This record gives sequence, structure tokens and C-alpha cells, in this order.
Amino acid sequence: MSLDEKVKAMGIDIEDFSPSPTLAPATRIGNTIYCSGHVSTGYVGKLGAGVDVETGKQAARVCAEDLLKAAYTLTGTVNNLRLRKLLGAVNSAPDFTDQHLVINGASELFWELYDGEKHARSALGFSSLPNGFAVEIEAVFEIVD
Amino acid sequence: MSLDEKVKAMGIDIEDFSPSPTLAPATRIGNTIYCSGHVSTGYVGKLGAGVDVETGKQAARVCAEDLLKAAYTLTGTVNNLRLRKLLGAVNSAPDFTDQHLVINGASELFWELYDGEKHARSALGFSSLPNGFAVEIEAVFEIVD
Amino acid sequence: MSLDEKVKAMGIDIEDFSPSPTLAPATRIGNTIYCSGHVSTGYVGKLGAGVDVETGKQAARVCAEDLLKAAYTLTGTVNNLRLRKLLGAVNSAPDFTDQHLVINGASELFWELYDGEKHARSALGFSSLPNGFAVEIEAVFEIVD
Repeated sequence: MSLDEKVKAMGIDIEDFSPSPTLAPATRIGNTIYCSGHVSTGYVGKLGAGVDVETGKQAARVCAEDLLKAAYTLTGTVNNLRLRKLLGAVNSAPDFTDQHLVINGASELFWELYDGEKHARSALGFSSLPNGFAVEIEAVFEIVD
Repeated sequence: MSLDEKVKAMGIDIEDFSPSPTLAPATRIGNTIYCSGHVSTGYVGKLGAGVDVETGKQAARVCAEDLLKAAYTLTGTVNNLRLRKLLGAVNSAPDFTDQHLVINGASELFWELYDGEKHARSALGFSSLPNGFAVEIEAVFEIVD
Repeated sequence: MSLDEKVKAMGIDIEDFSPSPTLAPATRIGNTIYCSGHVSTGYVGKLGAGVDVETGKQAARVCAEDLLKAAYTLTGTVNNLRLRKLLGAVNSAPDFTDQHLVINGASELFWELYDGEKHARSALGFSSLPNGFAVEIEAVFEIVD
């Protein structure tokens, strides 16, 4: 099964994506793709102050889907995309310390897609995020031959 | 009009730049330039706690000018520089959620310089920044042929 | 003295490293290495609320050692590794503004290793970090010929 087929089998509609009118969903230098920070559409609030880890993981998965869709806008296929790095921003109360568990919600999508292949990652706690979203994640993908 | 000429027409003195004695304003791997985080010289304080969005936008524009100057130190010309990504850090009160509007102050400089060409971007809220600056932004530029 | 020899002379056991079972310590695109955020093992707490700058610098140095070890896992030598960029995350009280001094604890290791060669850097204040660690740093290295 190709990655394009696997994405479909995972229930992701790769072309269902509404890019910003002013920002690029992703840009490319050579075979490196830099994705914009993608926010957790539908999930607002602060972890440790009203949003629990399980909900945060769902929010992170929304970001992951949009990151994949963003990279896809540059290639038209997932087959040659590999995730190399995530930077996961969690809207956090000052005493919330489970950012890594929240961002696992994004990593799990990519572990499934890439059969457990590991990516680099940072998970960090932010005092606030644009429009109050619970999670925002940016990514670096490689375009492989 | 070349980009070097356009920068001048926009009132930016590209060589008026005081680099850190210990940190590189920018480094290069191949044709990718990684800029250090550049702070909003002249603008301190927290958005949502004393600094308003309009002032924050001006602060972000200061960062944008310095990012361009930082990249220029590696090339000696703007003509072959293209902005690919910004990471915008806004010194934010916990309930401030307009980081994207603040960082627009940086993006607008690049949209003008590059005739609306889009870059990738993250805008994020930080509990505090070095020396209390209101904004700090880092950037990735491409050197094109 | 080669960089491998210098690392040893600096008291760093480059192979003493315990990678995450699920995340890559570092990944590579071409000659660019992206390191995961590495946390300050042994150092928890918030700068400006119980952790002082000197302790924070020690925490940052722990991160720096692990970043070097992470990059080494991809090359098996330090001789061809050059640091190009750090992003330093400091677990910060809202009024703490010396993030740059804390992250100097990491930069100093690299300045010593690379005879003062400068890297690009951002230092930023975060409301909280995973498991309450005091510092988390990510890095970009270049593999040179």
C-alpha cells in the first residue's frame, strides 16, 4: 500500500484543506519543507486549566493532519514525504507539565503512517496561543526520491 | 527595481546593523540561512499587559528589519534572498490571543518587499522574553540563484 | 587535536546517551541535522521562581552535551559536526528576563569546542516545560566535509 493509499485508509482527506489567504501553509528549500504552525481548529483553551490531556491529544492530531495536508500542497503526493521534525506548542497553565503527552497525539498519527519511523521533536509550554487555540505545531518534512 | 533598490526605497539602511559580539546574526547551511532570534530593540513589555497590538506590530517590524540585515551579512545583497519562514515570539499575558496580529507587523514588511509572496510562519505567546523585549522573531531565508 | 579528542578532553563521554524509545534524538536532511529538544536531566523548576541563573546555566550545559551526543548518533564522529543554531527554552516565571544568560550555559560549551566560532541562537521564556524541566534546547548542526 502506498502512503497516499494509507493516508486515505486512515480516514484523512488530504485535499480537504483551507490555506490562509496571506501565509504559506508550507514553503520549500531544496528537498526540505518548512510548514507553518498549524493550530488545533475546533479546540481552544489551556491545558492544566480546563483542557485535559486526552482532549489535548485530539487537538494535536488535528494539527498533525493539517501539517501533512500543508506539505502535500507542495508535492501533490504523500508518497515522497517523510516527517523529520515537529515543534509542538501547548497552550499551558504555569504548572502543566505533560506537554509531551499532548504532542504524542500528533506523533501517533505519523508513527502510524510511517510504520513507527521516529521523528525529532520538541514539546513546549506556551503562556498563550493565537485565538486561544489549545495546540499549535510546526513541522519539517523531507522530500525523498 | 532590484530588491537592493527596493529595500533602500522602503527606508531601510541595510548596513546599519550592530551584531552581537558572541552570537552569529545568521548562519548558513548550503543555500539555507538560519537567523538568530532578533529582539524588538526599543520596545519592551508584555502584550495584553501594557503593550497594545499596534505597538506590538511596530516592535515586530523592528525585528523584521534586523532579520533582513542579519541575512544580508552573509550575502552582501538582498537580491538573492527570499524569506521562507518566520517564528514569531510575542511576550504575552496569559489571556492575550492576538499573537498573529502582532507578528503581521513583521510579515507586512516582507509581503511588501516580495510583492505579496507568502512565507510560512508560526506566531506564539511566551511568558517572558530576554530583557523584557516585547517581540523576538527568528527566520529562515533561502539564497536563490 | 581533533574535535573527537577535544570532546573527550572536555570530559564529555559522547557515547553515554540514552535515546527515547519513540523519538529520534536527531534526524538528517542532506547535511543538515535537526536535533530534538533535549531537556535538562537532573534540573527541574522555574527560573525566577526558585531556580537561579547559575543553576539554569548548568541545566543548559546538560542540554548542550545531550544535543552533541544526539547529533553524534547520526555521524559516529564529532569531527565533521558544526553547530549552526540553538533554540533555547527556559522555564520562566512571567517576570524573568535573563533567558539569554541561562542559555549561555549551552553556548559556552560550543564556543569552547569550536574555538569561539559563533552560532545563531534564540533564547525564549516558556510558561512551563515537560515534566517541569528547567531548560529544553533544540539545535541544528551541519555535517561538513
